[in-house]
Parts: sequence; C-alpha cells; structure tokens
Amino acid sequence: MQLTETHRPTLDRALEAIRTRAYWSPHPEHPKAYGETGAADGLAAYQALLGSRFELDQPGTDGWTGGEVSPYGPELGIEYPHPDLDVLLPAMRAGMAAWRDAGPETRALVCLEVLSRISARTHEFAHAVMHTSGQAFMMALQAGGPHAQDRGLEAVAYAYEEQTRTPQTADWSKPQGKRDPLELRKAFTAAPRGIALLIGCNTFPTWNGYPGLFASLATGNPVLVKPHPRAVLPLAMTVRIAREVLGEAGFDPNLVALAAERPGEGIAKTLALRPEIKIIDYTGSTEFGDWLEENARQAQVYTEKAGVNTVVIDSTDDYKGMLSNLAFSLSLYSGQMCTTPQNLLIPRDGITTDAGPKSYDEVVADIAASVSGLLGDDGRANALLGALVNPDVKARLEAAAGLGEVALPSREVANPEFPDAVVRTPVIVKLDGAKPDDEASFMSECFGPVSFAVAVDSTSDALELLRRTVRDKGAMTVGAYTTSAETERAVEEVCLEESAQLSLNLTGGVYVNQTAAFSDFHGSGGNPAANAALCDGAFVSNRFRVVEIRRQA
Amino acid sequence: MQLTETHRPTLDRALEAIRTRAYWSPHPEHPKAYGETGAADGLAAYQALLGSRFELDQPGTDGWTGGEVSPYGPELGIEYPHPDLDVLLPAMRAGMAAWRDAGPETRALVCLEVLSRISARTHEFAHAVMHTSGQAFMMALQAGGPHAQDRGLEAVAYAYEEQTRTPQTADWSKPQGKRDPLELRKAFTAAPRGIALLIGCNTFPTWNGYPGLFASLATGNPVLVKPHPRAVLPLAMTVRIAREVLGEAGFDPNLVALAAERPGEGIAKTLALRPEIKIIDYTGSTEFGDWLEENARQAQVYTEKAGVNTVVIDSTDDYKGMLSNLAFSLSLYSGQMCTTPQNLLIPRDGITTDAGPKSYDEVVADIAASVSGLLGDDGRANALLGALVNPDVKARLEAAAGLGEVALPSREVANPEFPDAVVRTPVIVKLDGAKPDDEASFMSECFGPVSFAVAVDSTSDALELLRRTVRDKGAMTVGAYTTSAETERAVEEVCLEESAQLSLNLTGGVYVNQTAAFSDFHGSGGNPAANAALCDGAFVSNRFRVVEIRRQA
Repeated sequence: MQLTETHRPTLDRALEAIRTRAYWSPHPEHPKAYGETGAADGLAAYQALLGSRFELDQPGTDGWTGGEVSPYGPELGIEYPHPDLDVLLPAMRAGMAAWRDAGPETRALVCLEVLSRISARTHEFAHAVMHTSGQAFMMALQAGGPHAQDRGLEAVAYAYEEQTRTPQTADWSKPQGKRDPLELRKAFTAAPRGIALLIGCNTFPTWNGYPGLFASLATGNPVLVKPHPRAVLPLAMTVRIAREVLGEAGFDPNLVALAAERPGEGIAKTLALRPEIKIIDYTGSTEFGDWLEENARQAQVYTEKAGVNTVVIDSTDDYKGMLSNLAFSLSLYSGQMCTTPQNLLIPRDGITTDAGPKSYDEVVADIAASVSGLLGDDGRANALLGALVNPDVKARLEAAAGLGEVALPSREVANPEFPDAVVRTPVIVKLDGAKPDDEASFMSECFGPVSFAVAVDSTSDALELLRRTVRDKGAMTVGAYTTSAETERAVEEVCLEESAQLSLNLTGGVYVNQTAAFSDFHGSGGNPAANAALCDGAFVSNRFRVVEIRRQA
Repeated sequence: MQLTETHRPTLDRALEAIRTRAYWSPHPEHPKAYGETGAADGLAAYQALLGSRFELDQPGTDGWTGGEVSPYGPELGIEYPHPDLDVLLPAMRAGMAAWRDAGPETRALVCLEVLSRISARTHEFAHAVMHTSGQAFMMALQAGGPHAQDRGLEAVAYAYEEQTRTPQTADWSKPQGKRDPLELRKAFTAAPRGIALLIGCNTFPTWNGYPGLFASLATGNPVLVKPHPRAVLPLAMTVRIAREVLGEAGFDPNLVALAAERPGEGIAKTLALRPEIKIIDYTGSTEFGDWLEENARQAQVYTEKAGVNTVVIDSTDDYKGMLSNLAFSLSLYSGQMCTTPQNLLIPRDGITTDAGPKSYDEVVADIAASVSGLLGDDGRANALLGALVNPDVKARLEAAAGLGEVALPSREVANPEFPDAVVRTPVIVKLDGAKPDDEASFMSECFGPVSFAVAVDSTSDALELLRRTVRDKGAMTVGAYTTSAETERAVEEVCLEESAQLSLNLTGGVYVNQTAAFSDFHGSGGNPAANAALCDGAFVSNRFRVVEIRRQA
C-alpha cells in the first residue's frame, strides 16, 4: 500500500483544519459524487447483505446472533458472530506490540485508508444506517457517511498530533561547569493502554462511533466494537473494512473486532468490567453512562449521555428566519438527535421582533405553524423526519400530549415506500416555568419529537433556568435569539460558566443541532450531558502514555 | 507590570524545550547564583518567619493553626490562617470570570512572574523545604528551588500550548454549490472547571506541588492549596507570592488561597468532596489516593501514589560505575523519594561484569560496600542523607532488618549542627524471590532507606517479576543493567507494555531517581503508582473545556 503518498496530504490538511477550524471536508456530501453507478451499486451491496451471515473470520466465535429490524419495517435477517471473550480478547492483544511499534504516522495513515474505503462505500453505509437508525435516506447518507467519516478523521488528526508532541528521541546534555556535561540519549514511545471498547448507539452508529474507534486505534489500542443490538450492521461493515486494511498493511486484523450480543445478553456490562478493557467510549442513556463511569474503574471512560437542550427566545430582528430555523431543528430526524432543542424559553409577556411585538401565545403559535408548514407535504415530511427509531420514542411522544396544553399536535405521516415505518411530526406542548409540576416535565430529557414551549417571567428568569438546566441536567447544545447586546453577553456568560456550546441567532441554513467536524465541538465535556467533547486534546491524550527509555550517551 | 517583555521569551523557550526535550532550565542550581548576599538574605528571611503568624489576608479565616517541627529538631512555631470554607470558597470564585477572560497568554505570564519571584527567593525556600521535608540543604535548595520551579514552568508551558491549539476565533464558510455559502463566526474560549485543590506532600512540598498548582492556575482555575501539616511553610510562601502577583497584575488575589488544617482535622477529605472543587492534585499514600479517585467524583483527580521501584541487574561493562551509581541512588535523601529503587533483582547464579563474573553474594556485598564507602564520612553522609522525615520511616527502617539477612546494617549518623536530627544510612536486606514470605516483604512499598537484594532464578525470571511488580504495585521508575542487546530489548518491552519509565545502564552522574523537567517524564500515568505523568498533554487538557459561541456571519 502506498499509504504515505495516498494519505499524508489528507492528514496534513486535517491537521491544518483542526488548528484553523475553518470549513473543510474531504468527504463529499452530494449523493452524486460517488460515481454514476454509486447509488445503484450501494443499494445492491446493501441488499446482498440482507438475510445472510456476516462473516468476519475473527477468532473466538461461539455462535451467531442477529435480529435487526429496520425502523422502516423490514427485518434485516443478518447474523453476526457472537464472541467467546476468553478467546477473542487475548487474540486482540496479540498484534498490539507491532501496532505500537509502527508509530503514530503509520497508524494514522492506516486509519485514513480504512476511512477512505468506508467513504467509497458511502451509499452502502447510507442504507445500513437508514435501516438501523430510522434516519431518512439523505440524512443517513450525509450524517452516517461523510460527516461520520469527518469525525473519524478528526480524531485521527488529534491522535497523531498528540502523540507527536514529544519527539521520538532526544539528546540531553546538561552542563556541569568545568566538568564534562551529563549526557543522555532518550527515546519516547507512545504506548497504548490496552483494548478499547466502543459501545455504539442506535441513532448514530457511525457518527457517534467513529471518533472513539479511530482515536483509540490511532493511539495504538485494539478496538472491540460492541454495537447497539438494533444497529449492528453499519459498525460490522466498519469492522470488516478495518480488518481488511489492517491485514493488507501487514498488521494483525484482530486489532479490530466485533462483539455482537444475544438478545437481552447485556454484554456491554460484562465487557466494561473485563480487566483487558482499558478504554471505553459510550453514547447512550445517562443511566448506563453513569454506571460505566462509576464501575469501569480500570478503564478511561468517555461518555456522551443525555441532556436537556434549551433555546432562549428573547428578541429577534429576523422573526421569519428564527421560526423557520427552529422548525427545521425540531423536525430533523424526528427530534431524535442528542442535540435537538427540547425547551424553548419564552417570556410570558412576549418578545420584540422585526415584525412587531409578539406575545408568548403568538410566538408558540407561529413556531407551531412553521413546523406544520415545513412538514405539510408528506414527501418532504418523510425526507426530514425519517422514522421513529423504537417504540419507546413513540410512547414518549404519545405521553407528552398529556403534560400540558398542546400547541401543535403530532401527526402521523404515511410512508408509501415503507408502509410499516412509524413516522410522526413533532408535538409542541405549552408549559409554565413557574409551576413545579410543569418543571418536573421539562427538566427531564424527553428524547424524541417533543418540545416544550416554556413560559418564563423574563429573560433573566430564562437565563437562570438555563443555568440550572445545564448544571443539573446537562446540555449538548444551547441556542439563543436576542437583539440585545447585554442579553447576548449574559447568555454567553452562563454558557462559559456552565460549559455549554452556544449558537446565537441562527436564522439561515445552519441549525443548532448540527456541528461540523474540524470546526465545531460536539458537547463540551464540562456539563452532565457528556464527560468529553468531540474532538479535542483531552479526548485523545489519555488513550496512550509516553514511555521514556533513557541511557547514557 | 511589563509581563510580556519580561516573560514571553521565557515562555517561548519553555515551549521549545517541551517540544525538543533537550536540556534547558532558566532557574540556576548553584547556590552562588543568587547574588553575593543571597545565601545570608535567604537564611535571615527564613528565620524572620519563625515563631510568628503567617499573615495572608485571605477571607474566611476562623482561627490560626500550626505546629510544624523540623525533622532537624527545631519547632518552626509558625501559625497559619485556618479557613472557614463557606466564606473562602465563594470568595475564590469571585475573580474567576476576569481570570478566564484574561486569556491563556496573560495567565501564563502572570504565572511566570510568580515563579520568577519564587526563584529570586530560592535560598529562603531552601531553608523552608529543608526544615519541613528533612532534605539536606543542598538538595532542598535544588529540588525544592530550581527543579520545582522548572516543573511549575513546564506545567505553564503545557497549559498555554493546550489552550492555544484552538484559535480564539474562526470564520467558517461552507460552499453550497450555486447558492450562497453558509457562513458562521465562531469564538472559542478556554473555560475553567472550578476551584482546584492541591493536596501537598511532606517530602517534596514544592516539587510535587507546583505542577498541579500552576497547571490549574494557568488554565483559569482558582487554586486552594492544602499543604501537608508537616510541610506548610514552603506552600504558604508560594501562596503569599501568588496572591501578591495576582493583585499587582489587577486580578483577585483570592484566586490562590491556603487551607491549613488543625491537628487531626483531615480537612483534605472534607475539601475533596465539596461541590466547588473540580480538580484535585494529590501526592501521597496509595490509600488516600485511591480514596480520592473513588470518591471525589465531581472532580478531575490527578494522583501520584506509591509504587515499588525495581532495578534489574543482569550484567554490566562498568561494574564500578554501576555500584557507585546505585549507592548514590539508594542513599540520596535517605531513600525517601518516590523514585528511589527498592528491589534490586539479581540472578542467584551471579552476573557477568567487566571485572569478571560476580556471584549474587558478591554483587550484594559490593553494593553494600559502595554505600558504606559513599557514606563513610559523616559530613558527606549528612549532606546526602538529610534527616528522616517522620517517625514512621524510622520504624519501617528498624523493622526491615527483621525481614531477612541484613547485607548492610543501617548506621546512625550524628549531625553536629542539628543534634536532634534523626539521620540513618540505608539498610540492605537479602530476600529470595522464590520464597512467598520474602515476596510479601518486597512486593509492598517500604518507603524510606530500605532496599531489598532479591535473588531470582534468572534474568527472565527477573523480568517476569518486574512485570508483575509494575502491573500490581506500580512503579515510578525502573532501572536495568545489561550488556545483552536481547535483554535490553526484553526489559524495554516489559516497560512499554506495563507503562513504566526506564533508565538503562546508568553508571555516571545521572541517577534513576532523578528526572529533569522539560525532558524527562516523572511517572507514566499508566501503572498503579500514578494516574498522571509530569508533565504531558493529558495532565493539562482536562483542566479546562473549550466553550464555543457561534453566530451567523
């Protein structure tokens, strides 16, 4: 493999991007960028996987397991190897020394080859992500394809930079006055921690999985991938490609392996406490994330859990832009993003806008109308909403209507291509920030297409509620609309003090729930929603240790 | 203050040093480098502190406490403010926003001014360190002065570099084909975690304290300094200087404060669980370090605990050099360094040397003779050994003689200047690596002037024991002597796999227990002896979070 010629320029460009944080991506978003037959080939490749065994040729397989059912209806019918951990884990360690000795650059370039082969199969991945997460096809292609690949590459760049901050060797000469200097030759090696465990999630198997996977692999650790049982395929495909590339590059393919679980097995808990597991990356519920942080003490644990995302609505000079921006944010993937706003804080006396003063009721009605307008056409609604990922989301959506006055009822949308898909528009419920019962509702995460229009006494009341929400419940995102420099400064101060990522006055084609790799941080790692950010130095710097060997010169 | 002109060149030089890891220090080691009257002035300044109240003018003082007694005999008679935490902690947070808004460069330069004022008073600090740690004067001056200042400066450099990896602002423009690009203006701020707690140690109050203190302060956090009750003075002086500099530079002096404790109060436990405390740096026992890691879940916890340091003796081409190097390592500061070798693993069939083959008994006898020779003169012995830091060390030393055959008995050394000082030469005890009772002795840390000459079946047996020791007990240092390339490679592999810092074939004036800032890592952070290394990216990168504020351009 001509790894250096092929990938070093991309690595250098990625290193530059994380320093400047200007826009950059080597992975095309447009479906037509993948060749004339790309779409058809991808679909065919995906279909060829259905109803068969997904062979991985990894050691320690003690049976086969599967059972994925697309949120769009069809059963995938794919079976994956179930691991005998006492065979698989030792086998994964066998290639560690050679992978470590290869050094940071080779590891980075091998990771880039993995990503580039994944990129070439973006259409195939799009179908796999769509039929495990319930994302609409275009979103599955973009978020599950190029955007996920970007986040993986970003992690590789951070890992490379972190490992190369210390030189491989140094000559140290300390003057001793008239005597000879003291002289030492020192060698520094980035040494891996041990086996890394990636615990994947249902909604974004690749986007949330790739940062941890590639950060651990690029820092020398074998990676065991434990997908969510409803979203195995995209990560199984990833594992297969990684194993192929590792083998072709002369490394042990067992440096990356899959751990699919039997129904109800709860293998993540078992794995998380194995002494061989030294790093864990997890995206999912607060409950299990907290359990991992409390119990997997032998490992470095990186968690993205749940939060309660807030938008403060104080005033705007582009009322129409604000409404359409918010409507899109609430609708995208049926609000099933960890970054989707949940609580819209609106002063009960109303707000000022370029379209005149608007009362609380008017603002809520206008947001509701904007969502209705956006999703009025079933074709467009299907393309934006995707499908509900599991029955729990549907149950929460249905229960939400009982929490307060419904400003916008949820609507069932028919999907002509997949009649079994459960497609619903978002519900908006009015709540009162001053009522304890209402607070109990809006202060807990209600994952799915549910948002609360919370009436507050004033903007400063909103900021205090925002602060309390971020501090106690965490937040992946905060949004705010204001024309007041003073309010802007105040909301910034809350976010700086409580460590939340803030989007101000978004009225165009960028949404609070979207972040771009190489430029935006996803989460802050400083509030209860997540203990790490994607991606920064802290995300990679403890995945390896620098071992120094010094000798007299 | 002309901070930039005075200190920016030093910061740049430190940044270069941590990248090249060549020798560098701006802090002179020679006692005469501090001016003609430096020594006398330092002594006088130290003496002026004795028998008085150490005023700090910090808020929330509810009484005075003290009671330090020099390991050399004299009572210090100094009283320090005892904190009312409910007053002091909120006061420490008051200046946080301004300190955050000052940015990484200003914070670094203020820290450098603090360090430079400490440096100017190195002789005064030397006496304070000597009479709290029991270090001999010259060691107290060097390790407690310039070497500690180096470690503080190194932490500042890492903190600065880490915070400036992300630019303060970025313009992001994403092409949209024929439509206008999406454009955002982004601002990135290094935001502090909260109050940092430094829990100081008895033996190296400044050397082990400065990295955490300056890393936290330079990343924007207030720092509460909780010294070891036997070693308050050096850190109290540090706090006073930091408060002076902060005030003069226009910041709140309460960003740094002292928490001296009443006898038996155990204030560290109380502080460690306070919700305001978000970062903890600790050097000390494994027991309390583990407690902190388990219980202070609201904080980032950095610990340096205990380990069992090993030297593998396989063969040498400089037998005399090896003996004298080891003798010095075992003797320096009466073996009261966390880096002092404890277990010397020697094949029971002996080793090959440039002076012919040497049996196990001969090697042990020759090491013993070398220590005896080094410490034969009482003046030199006092200058190397210092005093035992506390009665526990003396008790362990006395008990050690009962653990096996004594190859070198400990000798009492009189100190004519300080007749009450407890000065003892090291004991060397022969143990058998194959005997479980002996293993129980050498596999636990015996802090103080005690080392075990452990007979092993072979060098490969030694390496297996080394691996087990590092994995189970941790190690701050590993040493090895060998002329075999194969053995060298094998011991390197153990250290790479178990994450231990290795010194090979030291026979001259560098010792396994010494590390130099900017070049050597102190600990690895990858074995049970410590969860962090001094100093690397991981030591600083999670002391702050990057908060992003983005708005439409």
